[in-house]
Amino acid sequence: MAINMKPLADRVIVAPAAAEEKTKSGIIIPDTAKEKPQRGEIVAVGSGKKDEPLTVKVGDQVLYGKYAGTEINIDGQDYLIMKEADIFAIV
Amino acid sequence: MAINMKPLADRVIVAPAAAEEKTKSGIIIPDTAKEKPQRGEIVAVGSGKKDEPLTVKVGDQVLYGKYAGTEINIDGQDYLIMKEADIFAIV
Amino acid sequence: MAINMKPLADRVIVAPAAAEEKTKSGIIIPDTAKEKPQRGEIVAVGSGKKDEPLTVKVGDQVLYGKYAGTEINIDGQDYLIMKEADIFAIV
Amino acid sequence: MAINMKPLADRVIVAPAAAEEKTKSGIIIPDTAKEKPQRGEIVAVGSGKKDEPLTVKVGDQVLYGKYAGTEINIDGQDYLIMKEADIFAIV
Amino acid sequence: MAINMKPLADRVIVAPAAAEEKTKSGIIIPDTAKEKPQRGEIVAVGSGKKDEPLTVKVGDQVLYGKYAGTEINIDGQDYLIMKEADIFAIV
Amino acid sequence: MAINMKPLADRVIVAPAAAEEKTKSGIIIPDTAKEKPQRGEIVAVGSGKKDEPLTVKVGDQVLYGKYAGTEINIDGQDYLIMKEADIFAIV
Amino acid sequence: MAINMKPLADRVIVAPAAAEEKTKSGIIIPDTAKEKPQRGEIVAVGSGKKDEPLTVKVGDQVLYGKYAGTEINIDGQDYLIMKEADIFAIV
Repeated sequence: MAINMKPLADRVIVAPAAAEEKTKSGIIIPDTAKEKPQRGEIVAVGSGKKDEPLTVKVGDQVLYGKYAGTEINIDGQDYLIMKEADIFAIV
Repeated sequence: MAINMKPLADRVIVAPAAAEEKTKSGIIIPDTAKEKPQRGEIVAVGSGKKDEPLTVKVGDQVLYGKYAGTEINIDGQDYLIMKEADIFAIV
Repeated sequence: MAINMKPLADRVIVAPAAAEEKTKSGIIIPDTAKEKPQRGEIVAVGSGKKDEPLTVKVGDQVLYGKYAGTEINIDGQDYLIMKEADIFAIV
Repeated sequence: MAINMKPLADRVIVAPAAAEEKTKSGIIIPDTAKEKPQRGEIVAVGSGKKDEPLTVKVGDQVLYGKYAGTEINIDGQDYLIMKEADIFAIV
Repeated sequence: MAINMKPLADRVIVAPAAAEEKTKSGIIIPDTAKEKPQRGEIVAVGSGKKDEPLTVKVGDQVLYGKYAGTEINIDGQDYLIMKEADIFAIV
Repeated sequence: MAINMKPLADRVIVAPAAAEEKTKSGIIIPDTAKEKPQRGEIVAVGSGKKDEPLTVKVGDQVLYGKYAGTEINIDGQDYLIMKEADIFAIV
Repeated sequence: MAINMKPLADRVIVAPAAAEEKTKSGIIIPDTAKEKPQRGEIVAVGSGKKDEPLTVKVGDQVLYGKYAGTEINIDGQDYLIMKEADIFAIV
C-alpha cells in the first residue's frame, strides 16, 4: 500500500494499525499512560537528509511512540506524518 | 502563481488554501486542537542554506503545521513566510 | 542611503520604514499581536561569518519581525541593529 | 536468546532480568528512588548511526537506568526499547 | 589607550564612554529599559578562538548591549570584560 | 583493584574512598552544601568515544562532584558509574 | 608555586589571592553582587581538549568569576578547580 504524497527530508507517513488488543505477531500494546508504543505500516517516505538516507521503506511494519507525528486524513483514512527518528523498530 | 519577493536562506512563502472542509485531492483537515496541518501553495522560495538547497519549488502544494510561519499581506492577499523545515510533505 | 558604522559579523543595520498602513508595494502590516513583520531598508552590513557571507546588501528593502534587533539613534534618526537571520525576505 | 524485530539506528531491545534482590554475579540493586540501575539481556540491536556502530551485542548482560526506554510486549514477554547511550555497562 | 592585561580567547576589554547624552558622532543612547546599547573603546583584545581571529582591535569605538560583560576596576578606572559576540558594531 | 564489568563509551566505575575527614595526601573535603568534591579510585574504564580515548585508568585516585554518577552495588561494595567528564582531577 | 594534582582536560586549579581590597597591580574588586570577578594564581593545568591546548600556564595571575569552579582543600590551603573558559583574563 502506498499513497501519492511526498514527505520532506526525514519524514515518513504511517498508516496506523487498527486498534486491536493483540496483533498477528503477538505484540500487545501495554496500557501505560505516557508514550505508549504503537504499530503501523509505512506508506510514504521522504528522501532523507543530505548524508542520512532513510532506513525504513514503504510496506515496513513499524513501532512508534503514542504521541509521535501529526495526524492527517487522506481520502477518508487517517495517517500520521512523523520523522524517522520517532520510529523505534521494524517489526 | 508567483510573487515578487525573495525569502532569505531556507525560508519559503506559502499562499494558504481556502479554508474548505475537504480539498480536491480529498484531504480533510482534522479538528484536533494542537498543530493542525494545513495546505497551501508555494509562491516564493529562498536560495537555501550553504550546503542544503531547498526541496520545494514554486507551485508545489504542501502541508504544514497550523502555527507555522508569520503572516504577511501583499496586495490584499494573505501569505505565510516559514522555513522549509516547517513543511511536512508535498501533496 | 548608507551610514558610517560597521556592524560585526552577521549583523546589519536597518532604517525602519515610516509606520504607514499600506506601503508603496502594497504590503499591509497585519495587526496580529505577536511578531508582527515590519519593513525597512538596509543601511549597513557586517562582513558575515567565516564561511557565510551575508545575502542582503545596503539599499535592500527587507521584512523582519516586530521585536527583532536593538534600537540605536544616529544623528537623530532611529535604526535597528539585528542579525541577518532575523530578516525574513527581500521585498 | 534473540527476537525477530529490528531496532532502528542506535536503539537496542533489552529483556529485563527478573526482579531478584541479588543477581547471580552478586549485584544488588539499591533502593534509591531516582534512576535505579537495572539489569537485563540484549535481545536485538540496531545497525548504529552512520559513523558509530553499536558496542553491545545480542546476549550481553547490561546495566541501565530505571526509567530508560519504552516498554513493549512481544508474545507475552516484556521488553524495553532504548538507545545504547542509556546503557551504563556490560556486566 | 591600552592596558596591560590579556583577555582569554574571544574576550575583549572595553573602556565605557562617559555617560553623555549625545556623543561627538551624534549617537544618542535611547532610554528604552531592556538592553540599551552603549558605547566604549576597546583597550585590550584576546587572541581569538582557534579558527576565528577577532575583528575588533585596540582603539576601536564600539557599541554593545547595556548588560554585556563583567565590570572590573584597574587603577581606579572601570572597564568591562566581554566576548566579542556581545559587540554590535564598530562606530 | 579492578572489577569484572565493562563500562560503555566514556563511562568509568569509581570505588569511593571511605568517608574520612582528612585523606592520606591531606585533602580535606569541605563542608559546602552543593557539589562537594569527593575522592575515589578508578576500578573500571570504558573504551572512550570514537575520537576521544579516556585519560583516566584503573588505579587512578580521582576527585569528582558529590552528585556525580549512579550508585551500584557489586558483591556487597558500593561503586559509582559516571562519565569521565564528571571527574575533576587525578590526585 | 605548583601542586601535585593533575586536572583533567580543560580544567585548571587556581590558588585564590588573599581578599585584599586593592591588589599590587592596582586592581580593585568591585562590590557588585552578581558574578564579582576575582583574582588568583594558576597552580595546575590540564592537558587541554583534543584540539584546544590550554592558554594559561602555572604561575599566571588570572581573573575569574566569583562563582566559578569548585572549592577543594589541599594540605590546609583552599583552591578552586575550574574550566579555563571560566577565566576572563591574564593580569
